[in-house]
Amino acid sequence: MNAFDPWPPVPDGHPFGLANLPFGVFSHSSAGAGAGARRIGVAVGEQVLDVAPVLDDAVFAAPTLDRFLARGRATWSETRARITELLTDAHYQGAVSAHLLPRSEVTLHLPFTVADYVDFYCSLDHASNVGRIFRPDAEPLLPNWRHLPVGYHGRAGTVVVSGTPVVRPCGQRRPPGSDGPAYGPSARLDVEAEIAFVVGVGSPLGEPVPIDAFAEHVFGVVLLNDWSARDIQAWEYQPLGPFLGKSFATSISPWVVPLEALAAARVDGPAQDPAPLPYLRRREAWGLDLEIEVALDGEVVSRPPFATMYWTADQMLAHLTVNGASTRPGDLFASGTVSGPEPGQRGSLIELTWNGAEPLTLPDGSTRTFLEDGDRVTISATAPSATGGLLSLGDVTGTIHPAHPA
Amino acid sequence: MNAFDPWPPVPDGHPFGLANLPFGVFSHSSAGAGAGARRIGVAVGEQVLDVAPVLDDAVFAAPTLDRFLARGRATWSETRARITELLTDAHYQGAVSAHLLPRSEVTLHLPFTVADYVDFYCSLDHASNVGRIFRPDAEPLLPNWRHLPVGYHGRAGTVVVSGTPVVRPCGQRRPPGSDGPAYGPSARLDVEAEIAFVVGVGSPLGEPVPIDAFAEHVFGVVLLNDWSARDIQAWEYQPLGPFLGKSFATSISPWVVPLEALAAARVDGPAQDPAPLPYLRRREAWGLDLEIEVALDGEVVSRPPFATMYWTADQMLAHLTVNGASTRPGDLFASGTVSGPEPGQRGSLIELTWNGAEPLTLPDGSTRTFLEDGDRVTISATAPSATGGLLSLGDVTGTIHPAHPA
Repeated sequence: MNAFDPWPPVPDGHPFGLANLPFGVFSHSSAGAGAGARRIGVAVGEQVLDVAPVLDDAVFAAPTLDRFLARGRATWSETRARITELLTDAHYQGAVSAHLLPRSEVTLHLPFTVADYVDFYCSLDHASNVGRIFRPDAEPLLPNWRHLPVGYHGRAGTVVVSGTPVVRPCGQRRPPGSDGPAYGPSARLDVEAEIAFVVGVGSPLGEPVPIDAFAEHVFGVVLLNDWSARDIQAWEYQPLGPFLGKSFATSISPWVVPLEALAAARVDGPAQDPAPLPYLRRREAWGLDLEIEVALDGEVVSRPPFATMYWTADQMLAHLTVNGASTRPGDLFASGTVSGPEPGQRGSLIELTWNGAEPLTLPDGSTRTFLEDGDRVTISATAPSATGGLLSLGDVTGTIHPAHPA
Repeated sequence: MNAFDPWPPVPDGHPFGLANLPFGVFSHSSAGAGAGARRIGVAVGEQVLDVAPVLDDAVFAAPTLDRFLARGRATWSETRARITELLTDAHYQGAVSAHLLPRSEVTLHLPFTVADYVDFYCSLDHASNVGRIFRPDAEPLLPNWRHLPVGYHGRAGTVVVSGTPVVRPCGQRRPPGSDGPAYGPSARLDVEAEIAFVVGVGSPLGEPVPIDAFAEHVFGVVLLNDWSARDIQAWEYQPLGPFLGKSFATSISPWVVPLEALAAARVDGPAQDPAPLPYLRRREAWGLDLEIEVALDGEVVSRPPFATMYWTADQMLAHLTVNGASTRPGDLFASGTVSGPEPGQRGSLIELTWNGAEPLTLPDGSTRTFLEDGDRVTISATAPSATGGLLSLGDVTGTIHPAHPA
């Protein structure tokens, strides 16, 4: 400790400032007795607060957020208030600063055990673009789209933390001009920029979660990249939906931003026509004014806005449980690709390149329709902060590694 | 102990005889210090062997099979051999018989933590029937069906053990003659009789499981009822597949029958035309000659044969992982509805009643198209036993409870 270090240990307006305080799981090679062990941390500016030694609660002496998530809103709020107090009252500076580690030195891990993973399809612009690409002569939206948030279950076991290499998947796809399938690496590997919601408090079988109970169940938000092999998906998906075209990897950002940190980002969702059925009618503003950036090899290629998403997260959870399906701590549900109305706001390459017809040109002069080996994709986002300025949701990144030889 | 009790404690030819020895999890109100606690058991005739006290291995002192499953084939085989020895050598009768409890007195629980749940669509007769019902003027099978086992992810968190009440789900469905959806209880609640496979040893991300490694990864088999709300499913499933029409409950039988017990049931799968791609080419006989019965309120309404399933379980696992998807202990993958070529061999009501056009008549004179409140569905199965006769896979049962008022 140095009495001349600033306290709080982060300047006003920092994207990981006191208005943010996201939770994650880290390890550090030199953290004494627990060297290398996974620990719960909170991002504070350029540092990570090692939570277990400063909070007197065994729920934090764990390698995942699972038990903390299950505690519920009162604990989440009290914990946030206590951490804020520890980081602002100079009285605690000595005791707390010993447990701050440089973020550049830690390794971040999957922050919680993913129970069930559901992916929705909530962007009107994305669904319309996909409809126009694949069914150019028909209505872009299918008849159910404006009545319910369409969704499906993905593979929970292949949700990985940001930075995990993404190996180009192999599988069956039908080469252009061919009648039947061939086996080989996907030639149409894509990204989907999404926002995902982390359930803390589950709900019992047979009891739908009412739309106004959203914040009692959901702890916070992560960024998600729903990597998609379009050629595998196109061949396999009839009639039961996406499977191997998605299940090879789904990346999430390491810092779970609490809903409480996003209070200033809350906006009304867009008007809905037709009015949804009563169980889907919004009671509170759970649209979120998040600005997303998608970067390919460091170059921003898209800026999807989240505020215009047709279906909001409270509607997703109400729909997911209307049939009595139970939920569990660690359930993860994602928005589907976030695309806005402008061409520069599309959250997938299939939309940005209009199914490959309009390649992107990168600064080095190369072009892209879909991802090439070595490509690095980073999705980041910011939100208005309660103290002015912007807070960061961090980022989710992944680099494409070549397919394994068969 | 009574020295005049027979030993082994089960007669030759019993469906839960020494050739079977399935694993499950039970509790018993009067089991001494552990009263009411969940314990690992093996079914032996009309009794359950409380495994932890008789086997000297901490892996059995657990409320689920999870850790035992992860141990792998060598441990599974050694354990089976040791239990067989304990139950046959009269030397052990005193020590072991103290840990046999009447099966009628125990409560059975979900035997393992379901990691990811995948449901396939492997019956040619089922897929053809569904095609004929919904697309009467087109080819019954879609172009991909003979090239790969079509599958999708289901909801792991709503897999429940046999006997769990099934509450009729509510949700959106489009009433006949209506343009848009209405909210209410499903009016077309169905069953799907399936066989499901339980993964013991997982596989790492990026490494497909070769088709001939099937038995290194899969521990055993359960019966599965993939309850389906056809009206909810029909409205929601385009374009991403089944979701709320399935996720309200999926029931499995409580006893996991080891693959080793099914050695005498193994048969070649049916010939496949066209020949599958190399990664799906069978190396061993992993078809299984299981005879399934579906009973409605005690009356057998169908006898689906499993031996004729077009895609076999080794092919399902090879396909599920060909894109590099990892697997985990407790992964569950199911065959899809088992239907044979004859009308009396169809594994769902939608096929048995040809989408409601040909109602079933029950012995009490009542008719059924889909399930009514109070209906009880029981799916059971037998397999040829290595010692002659038949062994039982037990059963999976569920009773329909009325929808909860909104």
